[in-house]
Amino acid sequence: MLFCDITYINAQYEVIEHAWIGTSGSRISYIGSAAPEKATDYGRAYDGRGKLLINGFFNAHSHSGMGLLRGYGENMALDDWLHKRIFPFEAHLSSEDVYWGSLLCCAEMLRYGIVGTTDMYMFTNGMGDAFRDGGVKANFCIGAADFEGRAYRDMPQCRETLQAIEKYHNSEDNRIKVDFSMHAEYTSQEKMVRSLAEVAQEHGHNIQVHVSETVKETEECRQRHHGLSPTAYLAQCGIFDVPATAAHCVHVTPDDIDILREKSVTVATCPKSNLKLASGVAPILDMLKAGVNVALGTDSVASNNNLNFIEEMRIFSLLHKGISGDPTAITPAQALHIASKAGAVSQGRKDCGSIEIGNRADLLVLDVNRPHMKPAHNLLHNLIYAASGDDIVLTMVDGIVRYENGDWPHLDIEKIYAQVDKSCQRIISSL
Amino acid sequence: MLFCDITYINAQYEVIEHAWIGTSGSRISYIGSAAPEKATDYGRAYDGRGKLLINGFFNAHSHSGMGLLRGYGENMALDDWLHKRIFPFEAHLSSEDVYWGSLLCCAEMLRYGIVGTTDMYMFTNGMGDAFRDGGVKANFCIGAADFEGRAYRDMPQCRETLQAIEKYHNSEDNRIKVDFSMHAEYTSQEKMVRSLAEVAQEHGHNIQVHVSETVKETEECRQRHHGLSPTAYLAQCGIFDVPATAAHCVHVTPDDIDILREKSVTVATCPKSNLKLASGVAPILDMLKAGVNVALGTDSVASNNNLNFIEEMRIFSLLHKGISGDPTAITPAQALHIASKAGAVSQGRKDCGSIEIGNRADLLVLDVNRPHMKPAHNLLHNLIYAASGDDIVLTMVDGIVRYENGDWPHLDIEKIYAQVDKSCQRIISSL
Repeated sequence: MLFCDITYINAQYEVIEHAWIGTSGSRISYIGSAAPEKATDYGRAYDGRGKLLINGFFNAHSHSGMGLLRGYGENMALDDWLHKRIFPFEAHLSSEDVYWGSLLCCAEMLRYGIVGTTDMYMFTNGMGDAFRDGGVKANFCIGAADFEGRAYRDMPQCRETLQAIEKYHNSEDNRIKVDFSMHAEYTSQEKMVRSLAEVAQEHGHNIQVHVSETVKETEECRQRHHGLSPTAYLAQCGIFDVPATAAHCVHVTPDDIDILREKSVTVATCPKSNLKLASGVAPILDMLKAGVNVALGTDSVASNNNLNFIEEMRIFSLLHKGISGDPTAITPAQALHIASKAGAVSQGRKDCGSIEIGNRADLLVLDVNRPHMKPAHNLLHNLIYAASGDDIVLTMVDGIVRYENGDWPHLDIEKIYAQVDKSCQRIISSL
Repeated sequence: MLFCDITYINAQYEVIEHAWIGTSGSRISYIGSAAPEKATDYGRAYDGRGKLLINGFFNAHSHSGMGLLRGYGENMALDDWLHKRIFPFEAHLSSEDVYWGSLLCCAEMLRYGIVGTTDMYMFTNGMGDAFRDGGVKANFCIGAADFEGRAYRDMPQCRETLQAIEKYHNSEDNRIKVDFSMHAEYTSQEKMVRSLAEVAQEHGHNIQVHVSETVKETEECRQRHHGLSPTAYLAQCGIFDVPATAAHCVHVTPDDIDILREKSVTVATCPKSNLKLASGVAPILDMLKAGVNVALGTDSVASNNNLNFIEEMRIFSLLHKGISGDPTAITPAQALHIASKAGAVSQGRKDCGSIEIGNRADLLVLDVNRPHMKPAHNLLHNLIYAASGDDIVLTMVDGIVRYENGDWPHLDIEKIYAQVDKSCQRIISSL
């Protein structure tokens, strides 16, 4: 594909007008201020006038399999929400339900410009098949939990993960990766945690874990573990000795932040979910100041309730300005970095996250010829503070168009809607 | 128009499926669970399957004339932003510039489902003509400011407002109304404030005013006025003895909240703007508990930077859950009320803001056959927490379709873009 005479945002987050960007196979192969000599080598020519090209977004924390639960429990205290709505519904989920819920989320992610997701749920076959068919990059895992004092390597979640690695890891031209995971400190015992860290190191895979989402879990961890915070405890158990993504980190101390930086842990902050569940506001500015790799996550659609990443990026930006009292906090370039490159880094995808020759062609086209994008004093400002998720008219992953103008070439969207409804009806009728 | 077999949200904020809603002239004339007997009386039949019908939104605080300034100054401290970017640009604005900027905002408002706006800026002719041509309901005003100790009735802003009342008030079948206004306590002297209150009472018009947007203005007011807060001071000067809309009210005390309730002042809260400019978070839950009429405003696109009211409603809802620590705060029904009926009430439009027979036909159709609106456990939940502003595929004001599927039947959108660019170029080149 050759994007012709288009405005794009480069790896330094500068707005460059009148550019030609070509892709060959899965990669970006041409960037110039004029058409390449043999333009036809790049295949389809795309008229870029009135459009903005940016790199795709990376969603650093998500549970796509919860696609069936959007809007199912609302406006409830956390315990009621979990115990009266989420857990009873989840108890009836099959691998096939997770497949259809995840595929719905893949469609939504592509529509909203997410090209890669870091995803934790259950049923590796349902998840893996959904990401294979869904067309997004995914680092997926099942979050292990243990209340019985087992070693991770003796648990079914370990066996399932190892099987998933065999079946899916680095499949689809490296688009799909399998991570290890424990759900959280408060849903596991130390033996499992230490054993998980060992197994992940043996295999050299990433770990995903929830950390300090609420005050309650953070305080209870200190009681259980001789005053250690979840961050300090997990570090001591070796969880951060492999590349790790710690979701939330709302209630972390300066000492925790030091650990996260030293261990190169990615913090996947989920501002909308944290607000919606009233968990609090993560000290992101302190993390950024310390040099922590902060990436952005949606969490699930049950607590968000969408995967609209431009909306997530905007709320992230505005929230931290507002809470800090500093309107200069989170620059537009920082916001875009956190929404794209930082997430790609966390997934171990070094050739992703920015528009550079040789990088993966994970590209979004936005239609900026719309009232809310006028005037265009600075299109980066408009992108961060004014754009809509629906301005994205084309999403390309690894050089393949996966969404364009309301259509997903590889998906039967009406069938997905029907299967999602069918699963929901079956589950609700059996509750 | 007859919306056939559509799901709608009624005046009690219940989701009603399979409804037929008819309009005749500017009003809603039929609501039923089956087609009316003489369906053809209602004109065009609209297939409502897969769609959601809701009442249009009312934007309780806005400065549409600032349409040219979107994204012009970003990521700056408030003083720098105002003095280095906004004021120098504004000094070059003409009435014609304000017309085009306002018309751009009208297009955006209609696209995002805003049917009525409470609007403060300058150049009544530019504003009035833009709202006349733009097709939205507007209560508009010019915010008076005085540092010379003048009486309002001797000021040019008074004369201009009285002329605007002659020319525009209750024109376009009552669609356009002219309010009185003072910009804020910190930009006026007591003589003007008291005189404005008298003039507004004589004419029986509403007043618009900014109140306690920042800590600084609130503290300085106390120094200037014997310890009185802006709310207490304005009340003492008689400003709240007419129907008044107080924008922001971020830094108000429990005593202030009592005054606002007693005087039936509408608080126009602007959560996105307050976050972006780092002004703080208004104590909205306290206001609601006290029984204050809280409505929702966007503020201008220079500090928001869009008029996407579903996004505003979402951020409003999530922010107050998150800040209060109570995930049950701001129910979906409350959020929708605040975004629609509460704003209509503040504008003195008793026949607006809810879908009821005899009310004005200010209606929005949302396409809910999209991934982020699936599954549909509860469409009110999906509307508040998942919908996108772009799901709005039709906006009707007073029975007239003003936006449908990317088109504004009464506007030449490309001409508006061109005129906005032309104005911006002229102003920037003369700075």
